[in-house]
Parts: sequence; C-alpha cells; structure tokens
Amino acid sequence: MDEIKIFSPATVANVACGFDVLGFCLDNVGDEMLIRKTNKKGIFITKIENFDLPFETKLNVAGVSALAMYEALNPVCGFEIEIYKNIKPGSGIGSSAASAAGSVFAMNELLGRPLNSTELTQFAIKGEALANGCDVADNVAAALFGGFTLVKSLRPLEILQIPTPKHLFATIIHPQIEIKTSESRAILPKQVKLEDAVIQWANVGSLVHALHTSDYSLLQKSLHDVIVEPHRKSLIPHYDKIKEHALNAGALGTSIAGSGPSVFSLSKGLETANKVRDAIKKLYAKTGIEFEIHVSKINTQGIKIR
Amino acid sequence: MDEIKIFSPATVANVACGFDVLGFCLDNVGDEMLIRKTNKKGIFITKIENFDLPFETKLNVAGVSALAMYEALNPVCGFEIEIYKNIKPGSGIGSSAASAAGSVFAMNELLGRPLNSTELTQFAIKGEALANGCDVADNVAAALFGGFTLVKSLRPLEILQIPTPKHLFATIIHPQIEIKTSESRAILPKQVKLEDAVIQWANVGSLVHALHTSDYSLLQKSLHDVIVEPHRKSLIPHYDKIKEHALNAGALGTSIAGSGPSVFSLSKGLETANKVRDAIKKLYAKTGIEFEIHVSKINTQGIKIR
Repeated sequence: MDEIKIFSPATVANVACGFDVLGFCLDNVGDEMLIRKTNKKGIFITKIENFDLPFETKLNVAGVSALAMYEALNPVCGFEIEIYKNIKPGSGIGSSAASAAGSVFAMNELLGRPLNSTELTQFAIKGEALANGCDVADNVAAALFGGFTLVKSLRPLEILQIPTPKHLFATIIHPQIEIKTSESRAILPKQVKLEDAVIQWANVGSLVHALHTSDYSLLQKSLHDVIVEPHRKSLIPHYDKIKEHALNAGALGTSIAGSGPSVFSLSKGLETANKVRDAIKKLYAKTGIEFEIHVSKINTQGIKIR
Repeated sequence: MDEIKIFSPATVANVACGFDVLGFCLDNVGDEMLIRKTNKKGIFITKIENFDLPFETKLNVAGVSALAMYEALNPVCGFEIEIYKNIKPGSGIGSSAASAAGSVFAMNELLGRPLNSTELTQFAIKGEALANGCDVADNVAAALFGGFTLVKSLRPLEILQIPTPKHLFATIIHPQIEIKTSESRAILPKQVKLEDAVIQWANVGSLVHALHTSDYSLLQKSLHDVIVEPHRKSLIPHYDKIKEHALNAGALGTSIAGSGPSVFSLSKGLETANKVRDAIKKLYAKTGIEFEIHVSKINTQGIKIR
C-alpha cells in the first residue's frame, strides 16, 4: 500500500464535567486526508483545501506530528500529505486534533502499523502543542481511539476507553465566530473552590459509571460543569438560550465543546438529537450570527480508512 | 420478628482521590447491635458496651437517625437499641456511621422493609450530622449499600454502587490517637489549584473505570490524592513511612481513611494484604504509639443480619 485516504473526525473535549480529561468522537463531521509514500525522504504538505493553512511542515499541525513520528521511526521513504479540511480552525471541535491525529494514523497504516494508539497519541500531541501552546491530549485521544476517552495522565501518557451507550447521539452547533484556545484558557481562574471541585469529581465519577452502565438518566444528572462553564459561557453568544432550548427539546445535557464556541448536546436516540437540532436552529436563526449545526452518532471507531 | 441482631461494618470514606464522594465497606471490623420492638412508643438506647457514649436518644447518633426514621414512619410500636461498639469513635473508619446506619437498617427489617437503601441513608445522615456537624453520606452509604459507593449528590440524595473487583483486600491501621473530624476539616484549604483538581478528577474517573473493569494496575495508578492528603497527613504520626512500607510490601495504594487517623491500603489478594499488615506492624511497633491493625475483604453486602 503506497497511499491511503482517511476520514479524520471532529471530537468534543471536556464533555461538561471532565475538563482537560474527557472526550468523545463524532462520526460524520471531519476532515479527509490523503497520505502517500514518496521516494524522497521527509514530510511534505502538498495540498490543503478549504482553509488557508501553512504548507511549511514545521508550521502545520499535521506536519509537526508527522515529523515527530517520522524522526522517531526513520523509515526509508518520505510522505506527502493532502488535507481536505472541513473542520473550521478555532471551532472547538478538534480541528487541529483531526489534522495532528490523521497524519500519524495514516503513516502508521502505510508502515504496517508499528505503533499502537497510545504511541500515535504521543506524536499527535506534538502537533496539538503547535496549535494550543501546551500539551493537551483530550481531542487527539478521542480521534485516535474513538468513542469516549479519558486522559488519565499526560506523563506518562495513559488513555482509557470508556464504553459508549448504544443510543447516544450528539448535536453540535458551531456559531461562526472564532475563539482562540489561549483566550479561552486565560479566562479560567487558577484556583477553584474545594466544594465546587468535589461536585465536579462526583460528576466525573458518575459520568464514567453511567457510560459503563448505559444509564441515560444518570448521564443526564452527570453532564454538569460548575468549574469551567460559568467562566467560558460569556464567550459564546446566547449560550444560556442554546442550552435552555436544547434541554427543553429533550437533550440529556448541553455544554461547551472544548474551548468553544461550538456547543454540544447529548441525547438518547436520533429522533431527540434531531429535535434538539431543530430547536437550536430556530433559536439561532434569529440572532443574525451565522452557524453550522450537525447531528452525529458517537463514532466508536475513531479515524476511518476510506 | 420482634428483635434483630446485626453486624454494622466499619467503612472507609474518600478512598484516596474521592474526597467526600467515594467509600467502601469492610467485612470483619464493625459493631454489633440488637434492636427490639417495644410496646412503649419511642426510641430507647438501653445498652452501650465498650465505649462511654450518651444514652439519651437525641445525643446518640444511632438514636438520632432512628428517631428521624421513627417520626417519619410513625409505627405503632417503639424500639430499644443495644449497641456493642467495637469501632472506636474518632478512628476514621466510620464509627458514627456504623451506629447511624445500623439502627435504621434494623428498624427497617423489623418493620418489613418499607424503605430502600437510599431512603435509609437519608435518615442515617441525620445521625452522622450529630457527630460531624454537617451532612456527609460517604460512610453511611458504604455501610448501607456495601462494596464501593459514590455519593453523586446529597440534595437530592443519589448513591451509586460501583462494582467491587473480586481479589481486592484492605489493610487498615488505626493508630490509637483521636482526630476530630472538625479539626481535620479545618485544616483543608477552601480553594485548590485548578490543575490539581484536574488531576484529582482524572483519578476519580479512572478509579471508577478500574473498578468496573477489575483493572488492578489502573487501580494502582488511580489511588492518589493531590488535594487532601498533603494537608491531613501531618495529623497522622509517621504517615509517609506507613505509606512507603505498605507500597513496598505490594499495596496498590495507601491513603487516609476518612478524616484519619486510620490509614487504609488496598491490595490484590489476601496474601499481599497480610504482607502489607506485617510491614506496617513492624514499622509501627517501633514508634511507641499503640495501634490496631486489620485485614479485611471488601464487604459487598454491607450491614448483615446475625
């Protein structure tokens, strides 16, 4: 196999209560990438469609993660990368993660799978670091492992795969404004109340339990964020209204996707997820702010070969 | 049935990372209680052995929880309570919880089980509040439900039962000093670093996952407390040494039981739990501080009828 075409999915980090730790993977929102072996050694970004991103390997997140893996494995060939970008940078649903994870996943396939998903995550983090200015793994882990993931620790890197209940669907609205991750991080306090932290880890524990037991009622009770949402929601126009409409339409929970501005809802069943979409759509159409909205099942596979 | 004899077990709250939220139940450490129906209406504490505790119903934790339940159900009979106390008050392994949970459990049996375990926990919390000055449910929940429990929320009260891996055993050392829960709470900061809180909820999430998957290696990696232990360990003589010796002897994790001074270790297999006991025993014998030490399997049943 000399070339491979992949679908690299969008992902939702934090998942309400699990700031910097939890993530899940979407199914029908994502980038396409084509990676090709070359005789010339090195990593070359040869095509980028839809968005204006740097072609220079060291300035491109897909290039940086690929280069880190390339230098570690030192294969006899080189690689060309074509990126057909559908996830808008700065949307909050893992645009850089899809690129960073996609290139290393595809190279690993072309090289006969010398690395496991945790090792690939380790390289993908390097690409993410270019976009975020710090090491984060919650989006790249969700893209590479699929389903729900928990980043137990960064050093050493440990990713846990949490089971995905069958009937869970996500609705994602992406208001077309950009929030820089750095800005979204700067707004957070360095200290939090111990009593709030206790509520948050009770929710993380019960969310993990709910995913293991497919307990949708408990999912509903666990999808709360008392730490991050109160600070970040001011960055997202009409956030409280989106949440109110989504919950009224039957969503189990609604919260900020990653560092925003996208907002995700989780629902039991496709029908409810569609109702949630319709309710948010109706609300947001009145605001005059452009937006995209998607409904997706949870992608338990992660990156897919096309 | 006019009288019932029960074993009301000791319990370990917090479980390293799960401050105020997680708990587990011990099997061979606990109080005995005898509860008897009487024609005379009311709750009467008629016997207390081994420790000097108040006989007045409203000043006794078993009395307070019993009275709360009694007033809610208003049965035609009254109840006498005999308490054969083995768990030293202030030990950190749920002495007041055993009393508070025991009386309501036994009354419920004598009345034909009108209440479920969550409802019983609600009344047991009233007894705990007398001992602690505030509502806590982690010990009483573990005593009433058995196994590992997660107090998802106090208002409304929601208790989750997390699966118990088969080969898990606890070793508990109780240095014979008293730490008041109020003192142990006062030593804690009101604010914690967000980055520490993230580590803590990653550990709570992974501990719940490890219990679901019987992953002992992950249990080992999750039994860490970066929030409470650094403050409370100074209250327990030779805490760091206890932990060092326990881990060297093969314990998966070691941390403070509730608000101390007892220290628990969890091990895979009875043999290792015994080795941990021997190592701590050898260490603590040199300190001149009196102590008790126990090895127990995890009690998945909770309070037992004798």
